[in-house]
Amino acid sequence: MTEQDSIVLSEMRDGVLMVTLNRPKARNAMNGPMVTALQNILKDSAEDVSVRAIVLRGAGGTFCAGGDISDMAATAGDKTAIAAVNRRFGTLIEEANRFPKLLVTVLEGAAMGGGFGLACVSDVALATENCRFAMPEVAIGLIPAQIAPFVVQRIGLAQARYLALTGIAIDAGEAYRIGLIHHVETDASALEARLDTILAAARRAAPNAQQKTKTLVLDSPGTFGPDLLNQAAADFAEAITSPEGAEGTAAFVEKRLPSWAENGDRA
Amino acid sequence: MTEQDSIVLSEMRDGVLMVTLNRPKARNAMNGPMVTALQNILKDSAEDVSVRAIVLRGAGGTFCAGGDISDMAATAGDKTAIAAVNRRFGTLIEEANRFPKLLVTVLEGAAMGGGFGLACVSDVALATENCRFAMPEVAIGLIPAQIAPFVVQRIGLAQARYLALTGIAIDAGEAYRIGLIHHVETDASALEARLDTILAAARRAAPNAQQKTKTLVLDSPGTFGPDLLNQAAADFAEAITSPEGAEGTAAFVEKRLPSWAENGDRA
Amino acid sequence: MTEQDSIVLSEMRDGVLMVTLNRPKARNAMNGPMVTALQNILKDSAEDVSVRAIVLRGAGGTFCAGGDISDMAATAGDKTAIAAVNRRFGTLIEEANRFPKLLVTVLEGAAMGGGFGLACVSDVALATENCRFAMPEVAIGLIPAQIAPFVVQRIGLAQARYLALTGIAIDAGEAYRIGLIHHVETDASALEARLDTILAAARRAAPNAQQKTKTLVLDSPGTFGPDLLNQAAADFAEAITSPEGAEGTAAFVEKRLPSWAENGDRA
Repeated sequence: MTEQDSIVLSEMRDGVLMVTLNRPKARNAMNGPMVTALQNILKDSAEDVSVRAIVLRGAGGTFCAGGDISDMAATAGDKTAIAAVNRRFGTLIEEANRFPKLLVTVLEGAAMGGGFGLACVSDVALATENCRFAMPEVAIGLIPAQIAPFVVQRIGLAQARYLALTGIAIDAGEAYRIGLIHHVETDASALEARLDTILAAARRAAPNAQQKTKTLVLDSPGTFGPDLLNQAAADFAEAITSPEGAEGTAAFVEKRLPSWAENGDRA
Repeated sequence: MTEQDSIVLSEMRDGVLMVTLNRPKARNAMNGPMVTALQNILKDSAEDVSVRAIVLRGAGGTFCAGGDISDMAATAGDKTAIAAVNRRFGTLIEEANRFPKLLVTVLEGAAMGGGFGLACVSDVALATENCRFAMPEVAIGLIPAQIAPFVVQRIGLAQARYLALTGIAIDAGEAYRIGLIHHVETDASALEARLDTILAAARRAAPNAQQKTKTLVLDSPGTFGPDLLNQAAADFAEAITSPEGAEGTAAFVEKRLPSWAENGDRA
Repeated sequence: MTEQDSIVLSEMRDGVLMVTLNRPKARNAMNGPMVTALQNILKDSAEDVSVRAIVLRGAGGTFCAGGDISDMAATAGDKTAIAAVNRRFGTLIEEANRFPKLLVTVLEGAAMGGGFGLACVSDVALATENCRFAMPEVAIGLIPAQIAPFVVQRIGLAQARYLALTGIAIDAGEAYRIGLIHHVETDASALEARLDTILAAARRAAPNAQQKTKTLVLDSPGTFGPDLLNQAAADFAEAITSPEGAEGTAAFVEKRLPSWAENGDRA
């Protein structure tokens, strides 16, 4: 299988792994091999210090039209097998949510069902005006099983119940208004310019500090108590006394860039 | 008592129960009989397969001005009785929140106190521009006891603390901005057109799938773990192998409407 | 030390304590003595019935540029000491969040790091257009340890992860859009007019009812069950049968101001 034929393409560009869902004829509908490919990429990138961020997008002008219904239908009758296939997509969403570096999604054309779910766990979501978002499951007798909790966490209960129960599609402007995405751009060149700005910020961030910050932020929703703040204080002390924190605070005082921002490597 | 005299009116229209709070002289302030009537309607509609959705509105151009203070004052002195009356309104809110079909509120004139609370648990909230929203309790020495948790869940802590602690009223545009409602319409005819769109979507949704989706979405706020996702996967397998799921996925592949969307009945 | 020299200034004005962070040369960066001064003010004001609200702002056109990095750097090497300093700031944030009266922040120039955190726990946040907001910690190898959970609670996970992981600064318009602040004003005189409106509402609120309402609202995020609603019903019964509730409901029926709104004292 050549790179051209891969169900997911990836390419390193200046410390950032550019990942492309590559089933354009199926509007990048998510199937088993695509889930496996994404899981492997997330795992490898988490461990590879040369990767500072992942940018996830879709080939052919569409991000992802959802789960592959025909795959699902193929297993119909065996509930255990279906549940396992479904649950595995939830595991991918969880892993994407917990990816310890910056995860950026670039949303064009459609982000439906599972594609909507992936958008909901990205740290930064950018879209072009033409992108449409929906959870269409109820209209075909299904439920947005693995994505609903992440959607609620992303946009809140009020918007999630509206979208999940009606299946109504919204455009990128509305997705921006309700906080599902962070930026809407009018065309491809504005989108690339925005992406450059985000990635420049990602490279300025200290790698270890960013990873610890992400864990802290993800552990915060819902109720939290003194334990979380105690752990955060201990993590802060570790950070400021680490080589990274020493370099970062020194660079701040000396009004210069820290080492990781100069060359993209860790301090 | 004739239908005309009822404290709550209801009428079936094409699979949707149109429910109207009917104390216009008291701006539809909520009292004991109204709570009982609404609880009965919710219970009966949950069990009646011919009902696909409820639309809740108020007679006389006002949704609901709040709880009936004069009723409350009548029981003053007996704290146990007052707490019971208050708690029962909270039970209504919980039942409205968990109503297993689509609940739409149409908000005109005022949605204050308890009326604000009811708006906060609807799946779809539509308002005309003239509608005002407030939790005025603190200004008369009371607390928004049964609604506050649902308000926080609807609009988040930041907006809830502002509104609950100042008692300041906001208009429909601001209610839309902070995510309390889903659509603001400029006049009655635009409102009815929007309602038609929402109800058309409600009829396209598969009844059982919609009910399971609502449970899943309502169970999602706060922290969630693997149990929720495991259960969701099992529910997904049930849905796709049910008559409804089989019909829905078949209709999708065959590019036709599923049976329930043609005739409003269950598959 | 004269009032002029104090690290935090305070002045009573018509039932409201006006508090000013006063390290303008350091852009009001938070250090140990400032934390202590704020903690004392919060504690004293909570107990003083003549104080109905606190308005917190910064001297010299800046709200607060963050924690004092040089202070932190001075203790570098002793992780226990650093964690204690960091945790103590979290205690201040918790105390500000739970301050039993209205807490208003007036945000000008910059609300960064710890200043961002303080803004996130105010009941009402007002800003001028020139104010900028950021969590710049990751860019210098640190983590927004004590503030991240409060930021997530304020603006939700989607916006919090974007801001915390990129360190990107946003302006007041964007802070308003994502629900971090409640009002943006174009100039100082519009800001003072808005503040007057908010404080007038604060004075109309019944003191005890407002305090109980704040506790209820703060206990609501995340999951909640019947216990919270049962307690709320009992609190409601206490409120309506208290002198305050009796006066408030009587004033409502008689269409007059309740006693506390006339003179700023408790009923």
